Amino acid sequence: MNGYKRRLKRLKYNPVTEDILKELVDIVGEKNVLTDEAKIEAYSHDETPKEKYASFPEVVVLPNSTEEVSSLVKLANRELIPVTPRGAGSGLSGGAIPDHGGIVISLENMNKVIEYDFGNMMMVLEAGVITNDVQEDLEDEGLFFAGYPMSLESCFIGGNIAENAGGGKAVKYGVTGRYIMGMEVVLPNGEIVELGGKNVKDVTGYDLKKLMIGSEGTLGIVTQATIKLLPKPTKEVALLVLFDDAKTAISTVPKIMTETGIIPTGIEFMDKLAVKTSCEYLNEHLPYEDCGAMLLIEVDGADEEQVEKDYFKIGEICEKNNAQEVYVADNHTTSERVWNVRRNIAEAFMVVSPEQSLEDITVPIASIPDLIPELQRLGEKYDIQIPCYGHAGDGNLHATLVKNPDHTMEEWYEIEHECLKELYEVTYKLGGTLSGEHGIGSKRKKYFKSAVSGEELRLMRMIKKGFDPNNIMNPGKIFDLED
Amino acid sequence: MNGYKRRLKRLKYNPVTEDILKELVDIVGEKNVLTDEAKIEAYSHDETPKEKYASFPEVVVLPNSTEEVSSLVKLANRELIPVTPRGAGSGLSGGAIPDHGGIVISLENMNKVIEYDFGNMMMVLEAGVITNDVQEDLEDEGLFFAGYPMSLESCFIGGNIAENAGGGKAVKYGVTGRYIMGMEVVLPNGEIVELGGKNVKDVTGYDLKKLMIGSEGTLGIVTQATIKLLPKPTKEVALLVLFDDAKTAISTVPKIMTETGIIPTGIEFMDKLAVKTSCEYLNEHLPYEDCGAMLLIEVDGADEEQVEKDYFKIGEICEKNNAQEVYVADNHTTSERVWNVRRNIAEAFMVVSPEQSLEDITVPIASIPDLIPELQRLGEKYDIQIPCYGHAGDGNLHATLVKNPDHTMEEWYEIEHECLKELYEVTYKLGGTLSGEHGIGSKRKKYFKSAVSGEELRLMRMIKKGFDPNNIMNPGKIFDLED
Repeated sequence: MNGYKRRLKRLKYNPVTEDILKELVDIVGEKNVLTDEAKIEAYSHDETPKEKYASFPEVVVLPNSTEEVSSLVKLANRELIPVTPRGAGSGLSGGAIPDHGGIVISLENMNKVIEYDFGNMMMVLEAGVITNDVQEDLEDEGLFFAGYPMSLESCFIGGNIAENAGGGKAVKYGVTGRYIMGMEVVLPNGEIVELGGKNVKDVTGYDLKKLMIGSEGTLGIVTQATIKLLPKPTKEVALLVLFDDAKTAISTVPKIMTETGIIPTGIEFMDKLAVKTSCEYLNEHLPYEDCGAMLLIEVDGADEEQVEKDYFKIGEICEKNNAQEVYVADNHTTSERVWNVRRNIAEAFMVVSPEQSLEDITVPIASIPDLIPELQRLGEKYDIQIPCYGHAGDGNLHATLVKNPDHTMEEWYEIEHECLKELYEVTYKLGGTLSGEHGIGSKRKKYFKSAVSGEELRLMRMIKKGFDPNNIMNPGKIFDLED
Repeated sequence: MNGYKRRLKRLKYNPVTEDILKELVDIVGEKNVLTDEAKIEAYSHDETPKEKYASFPEVVVLPNSTEEVSSLVKLANRELIPVTPRGAGSGLSGGAIPDHGGIVISLENMNKVIEYDFGNMMMVLEAGVITNDVQEDLEDEGLFFAGYPMSLESCFIGGNIAENAGGGKAVKYGVTGRYIMGMEVVLPNGEIVELGGKNVKDVTGYDLKKLMIGSEGTLGIVTQATIKLLPKPTKEVALLVLFDDAKTAISTVPKIMTETGIIPTGIEFMDKLAVKTSCEYLNEHLPYEDCGAMLLIEVDGADEEQVEKDYFKIGEICEKNNAQEVYVADNHTTSERVWNVRRNIAEAFMVVSPEQSLEDITVPIASIPDLIPELQRLGEKYDIQIPCYGHAGDGNLHATLVKNPDHTMEEWYEIEHECLKELYEVTYKLGGTLSGEHGIGSKRKKYFKSAVSGEELRLMRMIKKGFDPNNIMNPGKIFDLED
């Protein structure tokens, strides 16, 4: 049934013919046009389960410049061939998967730093630069980029923008979008536009830059970005706080901020199963055996004494709220060990049980404690495990539905769907929504209408049609143009 | 000529008839429908020069609820009557002026706090709440709202959102938009939508909330807002730093941040004429007599020692850069005196010389020093004074063209236009743009096309047409729909 529907939808697009392939070669050169099945397999999926979401492109092209991207998109728009922009493929909602075949435009060759502008505390980058490379590049400059997705070792800056990636420092610093000052975008008609620039403030017309951020590659392809840098904190301390159970841990989260008045860099939550799975995957040992849940709290600053005062106050609040133990990781190596466990949870679960649904629900921080018992209830009701971890300080939790080995794949898909529907209903009731940082993509598309009003959907469709009248740019992601 | 063009444009709208007035009375009640010329005069202008920009509405209505706003807009949309949303009227670009007559919808009656939600560190407000009332309301809660326009004693939160207002704390805290978590909006078709909410992170579809912020009331009327609060800094210190001349002062601005790594709350610049004018207006005495320019630098934090360290470091950098004198205002009363001078410059100039053009250009911070000699050159070339002040730490300067009493009004309008064109060209060359926080409105509309590309304008027009097909919502602001 699914296959049939897909074919029906594809009817309106044209196939990538031999003639088109020749034109693509003319634009980017032969070695940058991939059609070999073994080579393009890597572009058929992201970090969502392959069996459910993978879809092959007809061709993958690797442009080397914005002008080449522009020519590629003009060609696709003229010939009505779908285009799927792709960063590192580390996405978690299927955003970079070519659901309708066509052309995948991978930004991997466009990985140069265009400009270091330390006088403005900014950098100009091509979209294919790896996020962590920026940090390493800045190591000696006393500056840093505050975007910090968990996949920072692989993800591209362009993908971070397309998804408005969050991550581990968002409680204090906010998400990627806050640090994107300007961008160069190839629109669905192939025209190149510069949005924003190096002005700290700018109210000259509608904020198209902000509209582009988080639009999941459906409104254009980000080819360059001007990012804002901050003075690098000279001191960082991570607290690893152990609790008896998830509810006690999570209840402490809002209090950390409201009772101390301190905004930590990040407050990460991991339940026991999440820590255990990641530790086993990494062959790492954290003192998790005796606890039901952990908070990983990071504090940073320019002043060592201040940071010490802050983490001491936070530790006290945790102890007052029945923490078992507060461990202090005040050097980079220890802190990095703990963060590594946190960063690898998603990957560890994918290895242990590829049949799963990694969720990205977000609720107001005061409502987080009410969410945990609901997860437990749903796990019991559907007879599945729902480990939970995530950016508790933002109210953004990666509850993960894991297939019970006793269930058939058919049963699992049914359970997954029913359980997700119920999970989202619970989330909405708590004032929350579908996705905090992973995006809608194709994974959450069928639930999207439950999360927005009819008027919002109407406006989003209108914007999409206006930007992309032929619907060639990452078509079918987030929402369909018609019911 | 101007009057003729206006009438031509108005042809497509319908007048507010007696029947329409009756319907308006049915919606908001008799006392909330104003037609008396003496009463509606106040709604014919904002803080731009009246002679040039004022335009009378046919009727002013004061709704008491979102539902009333919705009914009013539905009526206007059905009858093709232009609607101009209005906050406190403290705008500086003509955004709240009813250029095409019709209905002014003033939000002044909608001034209630809907909810204090300290568990989420948020508040829900009606759009007509005065910005400073929020601060006063929070005085005892250890919280504050980081939006801080210079007009905070009069401006409404709804207007702040429509203009994405900046202000005196934006260097550290960013502008209004960062703190708007959710909003209720009446769209041009009269439908009510809730955008965002209390989720700290949210990537569920296109960011319509961010699109609405700064759209100057052309895409809908903000009726309620959920604002994010921050822990209130317990210590604030203001430094008043005197320099020989504007160029020396301005050259110090980027160094304060890049050489100390400290991001001050604000860095305000005032040249001698600006300080003198405001001091005389307020009958205040600052030690300005011997200096050519001043920086007002604020540092805040939760820790007294830290704040002291910070301002000491900043003071040192200023001295190293040839400051004449660094005065420290480390108590609220002294600091408030200085800030009061800064906040009242615009008003003081309006009283002294109502024929002026208060500009809002913004450049990358590293380019600020290059701007000052250009202002001097333009002043000499056009034989006018161009006092300058503003948010130097953001690169946002309120250069103000002041009419020379020797020039006739006709000469002045010609000079103003020519000088502005040249000023904007200089600004663009430095990587800057037209407006940092005051908006385009009608005041800068004719220069808008010089600041954005054809593709950007096309996309903005497309969005406007999609939101408002009948072009009834604040029509003709920012840009026209056709050339």
